[in-house]
Amino acid sequence: MIRINENYLKLKASYLFSEVGRKVSLFQKDHPEADIIRLGIGDVTKALPPSIVEAFRRAVDEMGRDETFRGYGPDHGYDFLRKAIATHDFQARGAGIEADEIFVSDGAKCDTSNIQELFADDLVIAVPDPVYPVYVDSNVMAGRTGAWDDGRYGGIVYLDSTEENGFVPEPPAEPVDLVYLCFPNNPTGATATKEQLERWVEYAKRHRALILFDAAYVSFIRDERIPHSIYEIEGAREVAVEFRSFSKVAGFTGTRCAYTVVPKDCGVWDRSGNRYELHTLWARRQTTKFNGVSYPVQRAAEAVYAEAGQREVRELSDYYLENARIIRGQLAALGYASVGGENSPYIWVKTGMDSWEFFDLLLREACVVTTPGIGFGMCGDGYVRISAFNHRDRVTEAMERIRKVLVRG
Amino acid sequence: MIRINENYLKLKASYLFSEVGRKVSLFQKDHPEADIIRLGIGDVTKALPPSIVEAFRRAVDEMGRDETFRGYGPDHGYDFLRKAIATHDFQARGAGIEADEIFVSDGAKCDTSNIQELFADDLVIAVPDPVYPVYVDSNVMAGRTGAWDDGRYGGIVYLDSTEENGFVPEPPAEPVDLVYLCFPNNPTGATATKEQLERWVEYAKRHRALILFDAAYVSFIRDERIPHSIYEIEGAREVAVEFRSFSKVAGFTGTRCAYTVVPKDCGVWDRSGNRYELHTLWARRQTTKFNGVSYPVQRAAEAVYAEAGQREVRELSDYYLENARIIRGQLAALGYASVGGENSPYIWVKTGMDSWEFFDLLLREACVVTTPGIGFGMCGDGYVRISAFNHRDRVTEAMERIRKVLVRG
Repeated sequence: MIRINENYLKLKASYLFSEVGRKVSLFQKDHPEADIIRLGIGDVTKALPPSIVEAFRRAVDEMGRDETFRGYGPDHGYDFLRKAIATHDFQARGAGIEADEIFVSDGAKCDTSNIQELFADDLVIAVPDPVYPVYVDSNVMAGRTGAWDDGRYGGIVYLDSTEENGFVPEPPAEPVDLVYLCFPNNPTGATATKEQLERWVEYAKRHRALILFDAAYVSFIRDERIPHSIYEIEGAREVAVEFRSFSKVAGFTGTRCAYTVVPKDCGVWDRSGNRYELHTLWARRQTTKFNGVSYPVQRAAEAVYAEAGQREVRELSDYYLENARIIRGQLAALGYASVGGENSPYIWVKTGMDSWEFFDLLLREACVVTTPGIGFGMCGDGYVRISAFNHRDRVTEAMERIRKVLVRG
Repeated sequence: MIRINENYLKLKASYLFSEVGRKVSLFQKDHPEADIIRLGIGDVTKALPPSIVEAFRRAVDEMGRDETFRGYGPDHGYDFLRKAIATHDFQARGAGIEADEIFVSDGAKCDTSNIQELFADDLVIAVPDPVYPVYVDSNVMAGRTGAWDDGRYGGIVYLDSTEENGFVPEPPAEPVDLVYLCFPNNPTGATATKEQLERWVEYAKRHRALILFDAAYVSFIRDERIPHSIYEIEGAREVAVEFRSFSKVAGFTGTRCAYTVVPKDCGVWDRSGNRYELHTLWARRQTTKFNGVSYPVQRAAEAVYAEAGQREVRELSDYYLENARIIRGQLAALGYASVGGENSPYIWVKTGMDSWEFFDLLLREACVVTTPGIGFGMCGDGYVRISAFNHRDRVTEAMERIRKVLVRG
């Protein structure tokens, strides 16, 4: 008889964004005339920049001629893209990462959720709270947690990210095996300093822990003192994997391209204490279970690193950062405390009430969609995440509507 | 301390196609002047057809304008594609599959290797021998097998596919929980009749087993008596998942689009005998760990179903089938028995010697790459798989070279 992986039964009923989507659909159904503005899910709204579209189109044309057609690509991505990534995203910032340590994929969500497969099922994992739900859910599905109990899963070490620590948790007192970190953070928008990351790398080395560092929002960093990559920290090559995505950098949420960095210095051990290369393991996993990213998409991603592409994607993130500035300004004027939005497209707002209640209020009264903080973890209660990904006039309109609701309230 | 999933240590040293690739690279290095013809890996060589390129290009242009730009798509694929698939690939053949039972993905390799995550880790699985290595390796990684011992993993029920049973195994005497089937078969090219599939569906219903049916090569079927889909069999909706891909249908190996059919009637049970919908589970898995297929790629896939697309992709498969006819004819003339190549792009050749030895002979003497049968399982020993995916002149040239070598031998 075909039997279920019973770990799935531990999952909370619905994935946060599906629940938000359900509520919004229901509202729209009840109010068909409502003009809803979405500042919830972190989805970009501006078109792919011209030089990237041009490269994309050129590669599609190549696929239409026998002489230039490409079938299966190299398992871990084309060299042209892996080299461009290593050079521009790492070596240019003094982080010693080589092209063959870059694994091109179709999304950071896939990579951050798949990588746990490489590890033993009785590891102790640590996740920030609030947290991107995928880190947790993929470990629940794999059986690395206990049951859901009053807002948290058993067996996970939660790293509280609160006003008190500036939303950047310090390493825990106890040893853990696998740590998920994300900076600039989703959902809070907080960033970590070099010193804070140094303490994490030191902790990981001391306990032979592995850091999974999600840097999907790196392109929004404007303060040059903030590290862009974990590999700017001495020793990180031995203890950290980094995830990047073109989704927010270049508007690729619907185009799909990302990459994961697995340095050859990262080790992983068996029960008898023998050491293995994590790089070899991930390569084997990807070769067996993945067939690479669409060739035209890889050409489009490559164009991000050309001179025109670099200028265009900078304009993109500047645009969203200006949205974020408007949102933060309006909230501050209304007397709401918030973090993020300066080196991040997300603003984490202290609502003064239950976060689903605040979500419902803004949806009902302002027809604006946000994301309830509680959906990201217990520490998110009393917060909502507002995303700066929308067109300028929609953002100003949303903030004007929010202003009316909150002033009135 | 970060510890490894020790199931990875059970894996044979290398993935078959990587090993073939390594041997070919080595040979090319030693013989830089050699003009190697690849009839090994099943990768298409002809360009994407014109109407598909046109749809692809149009969608890329949409991504370049704010008004038509698309960010994250629906989790399981755009409705336009799911509907086209359900209508053309299933309903048109009398198989009752609805659009919301179609899950669009970036590859059948991902789907066939990921789906085992939904199931208990102590299931008994059955795989054909020879077999596409991904079915087995993904289960080894998940811990569903014993150690590798003399050519086979412990704990798996192998379904011998031999000359005696026409390379189509009957259901085993014992009950199993999960069965992988692939028709037209990779690697043998054999096809299953309606009656043979009926016996499998009957077996699955009797034992509450689940059939994972891989139909990646369906577009090469020319004999209309052969079922295209498992859902042409009465009752299959309750016991079978089907995997399809645009890779071979429309030359998408480098473009990346596939889909998986999970009917709402498929059940899966927990230890206490409670029943769950497999459809809900797969939806949850995909929503959590996957972010959908590139929008322009989905538009390109949709174009396959338009009138021009249907004509063009038929021409594509006709072309490769004519290659297959040439290969089979030449082999028959040389006195070699083979199967496949009539409703399949693969020809499974009885070599009369060890299969790596035959592979080496053809590589060394004819500079032609094939795939050694033993790489697909013990029953593949003494066979090689020859793929019809290449340009006509390369195929005729390869067969002329092979003729010279084998006549001489």
